[in-house]
Amino acid sequence: MTELRQDPTTDDWVIIAHERAKRPYDYVMRREDTSSPAFVENCPFCPGNERLTPPEVAVYREGSGTSSWKIRVVPNKYPALGPHGTTEERVVEGRFRAMDGSGFHEVVIESPLHNQTLSRMSTSEIESIVRMYRDRYKVLGRERETKLIVIFKNHGIAAGTSIEHPHSQIVAAPVVSPQITKKCHVALEHYKKTGRCLYCDINEWELDSRTRLVTESGRFLVFHPYASRYPFETWVSPKRHNACFGNIDSEEIRELGKTLQWIMEKIDRALGKPDFNYVFHTAPVEDEISEHLHWYIQIVPRTWTLGGFEMGSGIYINTAVPEETAAFMRTI
Amino acid sequence: MTELRQDPTTDDWVIIAHERAKRPYDYVMRREDTSSPAFVENCPFCPGNERLTPPEVAVYREGSGTSSWKIRVVPNKYPALGPHGTTEERVVEGRFRAMDGSGFHEVVIESPLHNQTLSRMSTSEIESIVRMYRDRYKVLGRERETKLIVIFKNHGIAAGTSIEHPHSQIVAAPVVSPQITKKCHVALEHYKKTGRCLYCDINEWELDSRTRLVTESGRFLVFHPYASRYPFETWVSPKRHNACFGNIDSEEIRELGKTLQWIMEKIDRALGKPDFNYVFHTAPVEDEISEHLHWYIQIVPRTWTLGGFEMGSGIYINTAVPEETAAFMRTI
Repeated sequence: MTELRQDPTTDDWVIIAHERAKRPYDYVMRREDTSSPAFVENCPFCPGNERLTPPEVAVYREGSGTSSWKIRVVPNKYPALGPHGTTEERVVEGRFRAMDGSGFHEVVIESPLHNQTLSRMSTSEIESIVRMYRDRYKVLGRERETKLIVIFKNHGIAAGTSIEHPHSQIVAAPVVSPQITKKCHVALEHYKKTGRCLYCDINEWELDSRTRLVTESGRFLVFHPYASRYPFETWVSPKRHNACFGNIDSEEIRELGKTLQWIMEKIDRALGKPDFNYVFHTAPVEDEISEHLHWYIQIVPRTWTLGGFEMGSGIYINTAVPEETAAFMRTI
Repeated sequence: MTELRQDPTTDDWVIIAHERAKRPYDYVMRREDTSSPAFVENCPFCPGNERLTPPEVAVYREGSGTSSWKIRVVPNKYPALGPHGTTEERVVEGRFRAMDGSGFHEVVIESPLHNQTLSRMSTSEIESIVRMYRDRYKVLGRERETKLIVIFKNHGIAAGTSIEHPHSQIVAAPVVSPQITKKCHVALEHYKKTGRCLYCDINEWELDSRTRLVTESGRFLVFHPYASRYPFETWVSPKRHNACFGNIDSEEIRELGKTLQWIMEKIDRALGKPDFNYVFHTAPVEDEISEHLHWYIQIVPRTWTLGGFEMGSGIYINTAVPEETAAFMRTI
């Protein structure tokens, strides 16, 4: 029999379809390992091609030449939001609400190597990427109009990118979406009722049950959430209560480098280097020091396709059971 | 400059990314026309293979033999929800909420022909499919535990199905998702403020503006909504106020057969037979006769991929401009 599970962070229902569930190893991608070269002449993100991107807004270097960078941040050449216009709402055709696409959309070029992946990077390289995310969060969060910062990575065609060179993206948006508002509301209700942060509680519950836990380090938990929307959906959640990723401390940055490297390598080995997304969930800028919100990373291997049922209902059908996929990960 | 548009039915913000916008014809799929045969020996939905599916729950026939059906409805062999269990909530591990996956999940086999498509069917064939949807809505809506009925179609791999034989699906769920609750709330607020149905108003606004209108028939409007989440997202909306698809009348069924055939053929011609989803949005069962809700069909060609930004923020980036795509459709 299948089961409906309610996501404690959103009140959303997820269908865990036991009956149609594949076993965890059914999700392993079997595809050719088409390894690319370390440098591609016409790749806009490869060293030496810096002129092909807008001028950089931040960089970590290891030498003094234009191309001797380790990580480079540039404005997206085709931004979803840009630093122009106002954030005043306007009324269109006498009835619809709109505003300028005002904000920031940056690309973090994670490595000079075209064929690098997170799972093969050193922990200190990933640590630097996390530190760069934090630096950019701080800068973009200070912009007057920024209400929400979303740091995310699309890796591979199935995850929404055709650019192979390792990169992630940061969007600073002038609105908070109803989806985020709802999560804030759910967390606030929990806080009012219990005096505790919902996500700190979830961390405790997962530590307590251990059935969905993938690993625990000194400062982070890695687990497959109870009401996972997607097979092998993975959360990396800090143990320390902190609403805002921008307030991550140096010890956490160091440990997150290790933890991300470890889990990405596990996922690559478990599922055969799947395409994936990750996204940093962090409080809206105005709630950065709230008692009831908590930042975390959601990693989503792309083994599934969004269908009409999910689009129309908001109810996701997950064909894998989180307890089984987490147990599988622990064996890798 | 890009633009943020607010969806009047959900309050969601959508980014219309003018700057990165492709022109409408950039979305045309260029792929081989791999035409399948009309009958495939091991296809569980082909006539003669009825034993490969669970026994049918409804059928339209044109003769008396087992295989002489025109449309056949069977329970899904791997259902997301099934007619067993209870709809009582339970508490799992002392803190999470769950319930049995109780409900119905049916497959509508739309044609005996394996290689048939909606765009090539006659209008009377599509009319029969719509009538069958209505019949099943009536039956499933009477089940005590049904709270929401979702009728949808996934066509093609990119849309989430690997089964080629033309089919759609119906799920009767024992919960109303927060996404639907939110839409009901937004519509109710509009009703309280104006005394009018939001969707009747949207129909009027689209008729008024005509910039996003694809076509108008006696009983339906076809348009690309103002805050489309996806390129070429298309709504088919009845002019008559009616919250519930199950209450569609015979005149509407007849005309919807024509309208759906017309728009699917246009989409196939405009975009090169894309994979697509459609989903019937209809009021929760308890709101079937409400003054403020309104059923409609959302058609979504799969020219896009969900990325990490959308997953994390609930804000969709649409790289096409609805006014431009609708104008393009009018030229087809």
